[in-house]
Formats: sequence, C-alpha cells, structure tokens
Amino acid sequence: MIKILYAAKPEEFEAYQGYINAGLSELGIENTIVEKSDNPAGIDYIIYAPSSSLQDFTAFTNTKLVQNLWAGVETTVGNKTLTQPFARMVEFGLKQGMIEYVTGHVLRHHLDTDFFAKQKPGVWRDDHVPPLTRDRVVGVLGLGALGQACAESLATLGFQVMGWSRSPKTIENITCLNGESGLKTLLGQAEIIVLLLPNTPATHHIIDAESISMMKEGAAIINPGRGSLINDDALLDALDSGHISAATLDVFATEPLPADHPYWAHSNVLVTPHVASATRIETATQTVIENIRRGEAGEEFLHLVDRDLGY
Amino acid sequence: MIKILYAAKPEEFEAYQGYINAGLSELGIENTIVEKSDNPAGIDYIIYAPSSSLQDFTAFTNTKLVQNLWAGVETTVGNKTLTQPFARMVEFGLKQGMIEYVTGHVLRHHLDTDFFAKQKPGVWRDDHVPPLTRDRVVGVLGLGALGQACAESLATLGFQVMGWSRSPKTIENITCLNGESGLKTLLGQAEIIVLLLPNTPATHHIIDAESISMMKEGAAIINPGRGSLINDDALLDALDSGHISAATLDVFATEPLPADHPYWAHSNVLVTPHVASATRIETATQTVIENIRRGEAGEEFLHLVDRDLGY
Repeated sequence: MIKILYAAKPEEFEAYQGYINAGLSELGIENTIVEKSDNPAGIDYIIYAPSSSLQDFTAFTNTKLVQNLWAGVETTVGNKTLTQPFARMVEFGLKQGMIEYVTGHVLRHHLDTDFFAKQKPGVWRDDHVPPLTRDRVVGVLGLGALGQACAESLATLGFQVMGWSRSPKTIENITCLNGESGLKTLLGQAEIIVLLLPNTPATHHIIDAESISMMKEGAAIINPGRGSLINDDALLDALDSGHISAATLDVFATEPLPADHPYWAHSNVLVTPHVASATRIETATQTVIENIRRGEAGEEFLHLVDRDLGY
Repeated sequence: MIKILYAAKPEEFEAYQGYINAGLSELGIENTIVEKSDNPAGIDYIIYAPSSSLQDFTAFTNTKLVQNLWAGVETTVGNKTLTQPFARMVEFGLKQGMIEYVTGHVLRHHLDTDFFAKQKPGVWRDDHVPPLTRDRVVGVLGLGALGQACAESLATLGFQVMGWSRSPKTIENITCLNGESGLKTLLGQAEIIVLLLPNTPATHHIIDAESISMMKEGAAIINPGRGSLINDDALLDALDSGHISAATLDVFATEPLPADHPYWAHSNVLVTPHVASATRIETATQTVIENIRRGEAGEEFLHLVDRDLGY
C-alpha cells in the first residue's frame, strides 16, 4: 500500500483523488491519497502545486517523487529543502490548451475582430479586409515544447512564422532565428508577436522600451508565457502611443492582476486570467499515474527537473 | 488584340486592369481593358460583379465569357439576357479567407473570448477554463468546397467535426451526415454551428424556431454563408432567452445591415460586414487570366455556372 500526499488546491482534492486512485488500482497498485499526514516519513509520493502551504520538504525522508502539477517550477526549484526527485507537469492538455489559445488569439488579431466588435450600429466597413495568413508574419519568442507546437499550428494555417530561441534550432516551415541579431530581425518583421519564453534572468523584461521600439508600427503582442517577460510601463506607453496596436495578456507580474491595474481598463488590452494553458485534471492525472507506476516498477521518472538549468 | 470590359467596382478598376493587363501580356496575349464601350459586339470578355449597372447582356454578341468576380451567382443566374458562357469566381483567396474566418471565430467561441473581454476589472475567473477541442463538437452545415475546407481546418485543430450536406459525402476525420435525420443529429450535438450552405429554396430559413429548438442549450451560431439561411426573428428570440449563447454573423437578408437592426446592439452578437470571404484582387485576377488564356487557346473554361443547378 503506497501513501500519496496531495498538496495542491483543496477544492480539487476529490477529483484528483478519484482519477489517481482509480488509475493506480487498475494497474494493481494499492494506494491511499491523503490531504494531511502526521507521519511525513511514511509518504511515498507528493502531488504538489507551488501555491500549496507545504514549503518545507525536510521531514519527507522516504518520498520517492514530488510531482508538480504545474508546468512552471521557477518558484520551487530554488527550495533547498526539496532534495527529493522533482518532476514538472508535462501533459497533453497543457500543450494542446496552449496551441488552442495561441492559435485563437493570433487569428483574433489577424482578423481584426476587435475592430468589428467596436463598430457603431450601421457602420459597414466592408473595405476592411485582412490580408491572407500567407501575407502575415507572426513571431514566436521561445521554441521550447510549447513554443514549437504553437509555431507549427500557426504555420499549418498558412502564416509566415518566425521563431526565436536562445540557441539555434531547425523546425520545418518555421524561420528559426537566434541571438541578439535574430531577435532584432523578428521584432522588425512580425505583425503579431507571441511570448512563450521561460522566466529566467535573461528573459526578464525582454519586452521593454528598447525592444518595443524595434517592433513594427501597429504590432500586436500576445503573452501566455510569463508575466516577467514584459516591462508593463513600457508596454502601456506603447499602447497609448499606438505603436503597439493591441495586447492579449494571460500572465502578469502579480496574479491575480490587481483591480486597479491599467491593463484592465485599457481599450486595446484583453486580460485573460492565466487560463491559456491550464492543468486539466483528466489529462494531468495520467502523467501522475504513469510516474508513480514508474516509481513502483523501479523505472526512471519522466520530466525530472534539472536544478542547475532551473527547469 | 482582345478587348475586355470591366463591369465591377469603379474604385478597383485600376488595380484589376494592372494585374490582368500584366498577366495576359506575360502570356503574349495583347489586350485592352476598358470600363465603357460604344461597341458591345467588339467585347471579347466581360469581368463582372452582379452589383454592376450592366444587367442587359443582349448586345454582347461576340463575348466568349462573362467572368464573375463573386463566388455567389444567385442574383445573376436567372438573367435571361445572359446567354454567354458564365463563370463564377473560384480562387485561393476566397477559400483561404473563409478558412481563416471560420477557424478564428470558432476558436473565439470555443475559448469564450467574449466572456473574458466582458469581465470587470479585478474579476479573475481562472476557474473558467474551456474544454479541449477534442471534447468540443462543431457542426458545419454545407460541405461544398468552402464547407469542406473549413471542416478540415477545424478537424486539424482537434475539434470533433460533424458536417451536413443534402447528399451523402465521405470526408476523412469528419462525421458526415445528410438528410433530415442527419440534420437533427448534428443540431442536437454541436456546441458551435457554422452555416456554409448555398442560397436555394431548400435552405431558405433553415435556421428557424424549429431547428433552433433542436440545438443544444447554449450553442453558438456562425453565419458566413448566406443571410437567407436564418430567420432573424427566431434567432433573436433564442439569443434573448439564452438558448443560443452567441452569434457571429457576416451575411444578412439586407446588406449593409440597417443601422436600426437589433443585431447591431445585441450584446451576444458580433456583426462583421460581409468580409469572411472577400474577393482579393491579387488572387482573383489569377483566375481571370487563366480563363482568358483558356478562351484564347480554345480550351474549356473553368468554373462555368450550370444554369439548371443555379451555381
């Protein structure tokens, strides 16, 4: 009988418990899943969300794996008490959800849907026809698993896609750029820019007054990546001047985004509440079950975090 | 030297003239393109928009082809004076534009973008996560060239796509339905319904109180097809009751949509001004040039209208 500690959103405990208990039982792995334990040394696995009150892992001396439910691990990776194997969440729903969000909002900006939504009754602007996707350049900053998947979805729709990453990459149908000069090229040509970079010291405020000044007049920005990527004052200035025509923002330096933040009221900003890529219980539990199965079979865990790289 | 009469939007004459003149000259076909002619018997080809003042084709006794610039021919096909070969417009931009519009607006409804756009400052609904496309059924009414292309694009994004047509069809990854019972099945399962049927007596007001009552509670409707497909009063009633959650409408019984029409002010309706699939000059002229080349070479014309079928 293995013992699993659930240290994540209390309101989702029953759902996680149901899926994981059923999945493991089907594999013949007897298990019990608890929200609290008086005996940390008796916990075999921890299912974890960084927002949990559990921050000191010292007493979990026999825990084989801490399985994160979030893709992001930056707030946890520096925790010195977390010496157990630590896996980040990689699952179908997380990537697929991001593809759907990015494709949908790139098309929204491409089709200029907000322009039509804002028209007064009777104003019939049938001369306002967007170019075809093949005449539109979209830039994707970050070509990790999520960035690449989104770039490929956009290329399938016919967009001219430019991707940028720190190290050189080659992806079919994507113009892959890297380094400082590659970034400059992308920013100067893309009309819609999608931010899917990780949060690292090198990407902090990568979108600031200087990089915005390199962007095309009227470019739109979509940020489903990390709040830290954008210098908010610089973006607001560029939105006010019209140099940036619109922004769709899903992540913020402070979340929930405070009610008095100017993004909320800005007519050219759409705020979404960190939903671009949500951990979906049905699919996330499949990853949890597979990693526990591996642990019990003595196999290598999937998606272990490299503490030196930070992800 | 062939003589071409341009009978379409005056403000686009120069652009059409430029592309067609250059394209034909490159093929070695000497040509002149005029907006008016005192000698109808001397006109070899007519480039035509149904909105043109030219409605009597009797005097054009030597015209080899009337090339429509619109995909729709329903207002012209009954013209008894039009005895010359008559081709409708089929071109890359028309179909591609429709794919982009339909994919974009299906994703907009799928992601519930309007829900987030309407949130008050500070309202952070991160529990409002849409299902994945694989858990969402989209219905496409009409599986002609446009309907099929849109259905395929949606299936590529992972949606469960049901398509309906009058006669049975088979399309990979699409659940193809037909007939009355097939329509009922689709309407009962689709959460987003796209109308891409032609305007015929059989499709007139196919979306009425009865068919709407068969739809799922909260379904959304997208109409980039024909205004005649919808009984507007029935749709407005269903929008008011909430049985239909939202509509995105690009075509209307009267266009431009009158300023006092309730669609404009309805909070759950997005009006777009017949831009879903616009004839784009750069791509439409390629079809015109190819058909004139065929005429001069004595080859069969592309996309000839069948007067009996009406399209």
